[in-house]
Amino acid sequence: MTKNTLFLLSLCLTFQTSLSVAENAAVPPAANGIELPKHYKNWRLIGVSHREDNNSLRAILGNPVAIAAARSGNTNPWPDGTILAKLVWPDSRHPLWDEATVPRELKHAEFMIKDSVKYARTSGWGFARWLGKGQKPYGSDASFSAECHSCHSKASDYDYVFTRPVPLP
Amino acid sequence: MTKNTLFLLSLCLTFQTSLSVAENAAVPPAANGIELPKHYKNWRLIGVSHREDNNSLRAILGNPVAIAAARSGNTNPWPDGTILAKLVWPDSRHPLWDEATVPRELKHAEFMIKDSVKYARTSGWGFARWLGKGQKPYGSDASFSAECHSCHSKASDYDYVFTRPVPLP
Repeated sequence: MTKNTLFLLSLCLTFQTSLSVAENAAVPPAANGIELPKHYKNWRLIGVSHREDNNSLRAILGNPVAIAAARSGNTNPWPDGTILAKLVWPDSRHPLWDEATVPRELKHAEFMIKDSVKYARTSGWGFARWLGKGQKPYGSDASFSAECHSCHSKASDYDYVFTRPVPLP
Repeated sequence: MTKNTLFLLSLCLTFQTSLSVAENAAVPPAANGIELPKHYKNWRLIGVSHREDNNSLRAILGNPVAIAAARSGNTNPWPDGTILAKLVWPDSRHPLWDEATVPRELKHAEFMIKDSVKYARTSGWGFARWLGKGQKPYGSDASFSAECHSCHSKASDYDYVFTRPVPLP
């Protein structure tokens, strides 16, 4: 990249960030201090999934660090700076297509933030979740992180992440 | 918006477009002449779905016009300039979570392009689909559009679109 290109890129990123300073301002942080990542709904797609045990549909989005890692195949471990967002909806029958399910209201948005130093005690990941449209933080105290970490330990061979990024041509 | 803001926004959009002129260059157009939309994999999320009749998972992404329409609730009709991308994967059992399904290889990426004049004969929508990682255009001649249009007629009350955008706080 030329200097001009880098300058323009940084200008764009600064501009896009400045557009959203107020976004999420009213959402309380999680009990472990993690703030709701801004702009998460503008992030790019990492994957999708469907769970039959709780009848939910999921979309997994990634911040720019996560997308760069996913597209270059550098996800084990994911690099510091990665943030993954998992958006979860109970599913419902499509009103026009009996054999399809589609989302109902948002159940929660949950996040994994990679910082191998800051979150060393939970294998390098900070966990947080906000419930529903009201974006109420999950967990009454910081111990909820242990619950997230314990469940994600099933995926310890994949840096504690269940999602395998979908390759798109 | 101030003039400076608009100028900066247009600069950003121009810059982002210029980064990808070469992207998709080798992908043949569909038989009806529609070109594969550039950058579709960078578009934002509109929705997800699961089909039990063919065991597939789907993510629906939208170009900036589509996202603006979805977020402001102006989707019946969708405005001219809308492009919706539906990414379809056969599902498979998650190797670490028995009750979950996740995507296998991409089955196809399909698109609806809204232009109420150009595509007046198919209710204002141009249809195209590219198959798999190889991005082979679907349809041996332009008549495949009629097949798409016919199926989407089920959703004529919703401007021929099955997807209901998911609201995200």
